[in-house]
Amino acid sequence: MSTARALAYARDKRAEFLGQLKEFIRIPTVSAQPRHAPDLKRCAHWLAQHLKRTGLERVRVIPTERHPLVYGEWRHAPRQPTLLIYGHYDVQPADPLGEWRSPPFTPTVRGEDLYGRGACDDKGQLMTHVNALESYLATGRRLPINVKCLFEGEEEIGSIHLFPFVAKSRSLLAADIAVMSDTRMLGPDRPAISYAERGALYLELTVQGPEHDLHSGSFGGAVHNPLQALCEIIAKLHDGQRRIAIPGFYDRVRLLNEREREAMWRAGPSDAQILADARSDRPWGERGYSLYERTTARPSLTVNGITGGYQGPGGKGIVPARAVAKLSFRLVPDQDPGEVELLFRQHLARITPATVRATLRTLSRAAPAVVDPQHPAMRAAALAYRRGFGAKPAFLRSGGTIPILPAFQRELGIPTVLMGFALPDDRMHAPNEKFHIPNFFKGIETSIWFLDRLARRH
Amino acid sequence: MSTARALAYARDKRAEFLGQLKEFIRIPTVSAQPRHAPDLKRCAHWLAQHLKRTGLERVRVIPTERHPLVYGEWRHAPRQPTLLIYGHYDVQPADPLGEWRSPPFTPTVRGEDLYGRGACDDKGQLMTHVNALESYLATGRRLPINVKCLFEGEEEIGSIHLFPFVAKSRSLLAADIAVMSDTRMLGPDRPAISYAERGALYLELTVQGPEHDLHSGSFGGAVHNPLQALCEIIAKLHDGQRRIAIPGFYDRVRLLNEREREAMWRAGPSDAQILADARSDRPWGERGYSLYERTTARPSLTVNGITGGYQGPGGKGIVPARAVAKLSFRLVPDQDPGEVELLFRQHLARITPATVRATLRTLSRAAPAVVDPQHPAMRAAALAYRRGFGAKPAFLRSGGTIPILPAFQRELGIPTVLMGFALPDDRMHAPNEKFHIPNFFKGIETSIWFLDRLARRH
Repeated sequence: MSTARALAYARDKRAEFLGQLKEFIRIPTVSAQPRHAPDLKRCAHWLAQHLKRTGLERVRVIPTERHPLVYGEWRHAPRQPTLLIYGHYDVQPADPLGEWRSPPFTPTVRGEDLYGRGACDDKGQLMTHVNALESYLATGRRLPINVKCLFEGEEEIGSIHLFPFVAKSRSLLAADIAVMSDTRMLGPDRPAISYAERGALYLELTVQGPEHDLHSGSFGGAVHNPLQALCEIIAKLHDGQRRIAIPGFYDRVRLLNEREREAMWRAGPSDAQILADARSDRPWGERGYSLYERTTARPSLTVNGITGGYQGPGGKGIVPARAVAKLSFRLVPDQDPGEVELLFRQHLARITPATVRATLRTLSRAAPAVVDPQHPAMRAAALAYRRGFGAKPAFLRSGGTIPILPAFQRELGIPTVLMGFALPDDRMHAPNEKFHIPNFFKGIETSIWFLDRLARRH
Repeated sequence: MSTARALAYARDKRAEFLGQLKEFIRIPTVSAQPRHAPDLKRCAHWLAQHLKRTGLERVRVIPTERHPLVYGEWRHAPRQPTLLIYGHYDVQPADPLGEWRSPPFTPTVRGEDLYGRGACDDKGQLMTHVNALESYLATGRRLPINVKCLFEGEEEIGSIHLFPFVAKSRSLLAADIAVMSDTRMLGPDRPAISYAERGALYLELTVQGPEHDLHSGSFGGAVHNPLQALCEIIAKLHDGQRRIAIPGFYDRVRLLNEREREAMWRAGPSDAQILADARSDRPWGERGYSLYERTTARPSLTVNGITGGYQGPGGKGIVPARAVAKLSFRLVPDQDPGEVELLFRQHLARITPATVRATLRTLSRAAPAVVDPQHPAMRAAALAYRRGFGAKPAFLRSGGTIPILPAFQRELGIPTVLMGFALPDDRMHAPNEKFHIPNFFKGIETSIWFLDRLARRH
């Protein structure tokens, strides 16, 4: 049986797969930073070469206005369904660099973990599927089903150019189901399938005070300090109940019914587990909801960064000219990022003091998405996890955002199965990001089983 | 007459003096940044060499635990008073570098101004006195009075090592009067003598949230964001009246009597003038006081910088581990920096939410200082300005801080005359700092006249 041969191959090739993943991580594909654009291009070609060697066909690097897409397919199973495998080869910025135990783009094994930016988000998870395809093609020259691979380099900056590409490539991308691995499990032996992702709205708020920095002795107390004004604005974005204090913000938030809350309570992580994953001992947030609910089924607003004035060692006596904050909302059904942006702009106009000027720039928008846990492909994924991990997966909501998810639903009319292989302590987006190596190997086997289970002979 | 010869020499040597000042500015003496420590040492030796060539005696570079002091003297006028000339050769950090029209340490003349970090604060102003000494010594081999020069490299970081040096060097520094030029005039033809400086308390506040940066999708809304908590804390430091909201903070603030307010109203800059200097069109601050009062006779609290989370281009989806703010108070008589620090620490403990941890580091402390405008040396300075600038100086309060001022009073028992030659738009501490070249030359002549007027033959 071809699946048995593929599984045997995947076990044989573990060291080689790990070596290839290291090569992949070594390319610093930070999509947000323009100086890394050549690295993204190089990585796209590396990935395309790899897909060709794997045995995929019509492999190509598709340029966009910023970072290229990579496409490849195998379509020789006429009576079988078509699976669209999506992933991203770009990564989050690596800073603060000083907090990495080993350099972010020098993949390093410590214990059972492979450390490096992108190890888990999403290079390692992406490769589980590519390695699964290789395992079939190398041993039987065919796949159990038809497959299309679509990998992008802009997921971490909002999939800007993927949206129009999907909209205009409906026949190229036509499929029955999509799969992506960019989400988390509950623990090493507790696999999970995500059935909901939050949307996102990423904004950059600039507060401008005086035209240039001023001597704080000469002018301190006579002009409004933009850093102070920014703090005053940000302090007004949450109320005493730690709810987001923007009028109308919660109007479209779909309330959880008691049955779903009950199911979430049974399947999901406890407050204690989430705090342990965060290495924090103090919960915070909207009253009346568990931490799991707060981070998945309720919207949130995070200040991701502030910069302004003097940042070096020691002191500098200035009233700075301006202050900048990066703010991101996570949104839930049926919130619309465009509508939330409008509400925020209106609120900002109301709360900005007349003594400074506030301007807002939108960095990205993504709608929230939900997939029906009863869909046959979700059941196939659940069976695949039982084989790959020896345990039944939980169906979970995820708090993160995969911008393209709602577009696959809207443009291609297909649901997406979110097969996560990351662990809660894999530090996605943070220094010392890692991928648990046993999960990498189990992920490959799970992907092999998923292809097997999707074939119509079952 | 020797003063006439000195004045003629000073006029002859203008181009040379300007060239020497450029050489001085070229050394990047940023005292706050450890990597510049060798530059400060080099600059101290450059300055000592220059004093030697000028004809001062017992010239030496005095090492401290951080940046060295420079000392020199001329004491051959036995029946005349002794003047202690103080200045600083260190400068503020030059960033943001992108906003400089010419590089900060490449002195550049544009129009009537010399641009460069330290051009005015304090290298240019310091050199007015050194050039005045040279003008006498080169033409008559003597000075009208005895002089001691003391220049430091830590003024911008709180004169940390100058304090103990002054305390243990009372006989070396014994003098009748001190002078320093590190303050501002009202305009090119409106000289001013400062009779009050504000004190300062410079703090660094760190708010620690989770142990490391967290994915804002997975944890946003479940842990308290330290940037948000920092904003909430800072927003609570001023009340609705724009007064500093720390209980007890104003208890020791000496109220201005009506006579002094009247005098300040007559002599000082108008609100419109201060706003024009700040290139701002919106006043801000404590109700019931003019901008001149707010910036000189009332205390203030300025957020000088905030840093936390992601600062690069584009976005990054994190809850940062920590946020840091640089905060500085400007204090007025009879506030005590140590006592204000205690009040702030108590207030901080009250307003910091239990969900984060706040720590405070003191970077520097300086007491406020006032000099009697009726002191004979102040009258000598006023006469000197009338000769040097052709106009009667105003007696003004200054909003800045000269940390060593109160120590000269306390340890040496002498008042300090603050003869400022800077203009309100010289951008001290800001990008494109400059020194008005005509003021540099008039400053040298004013210093020559000051030495002349202090001699007992008058």
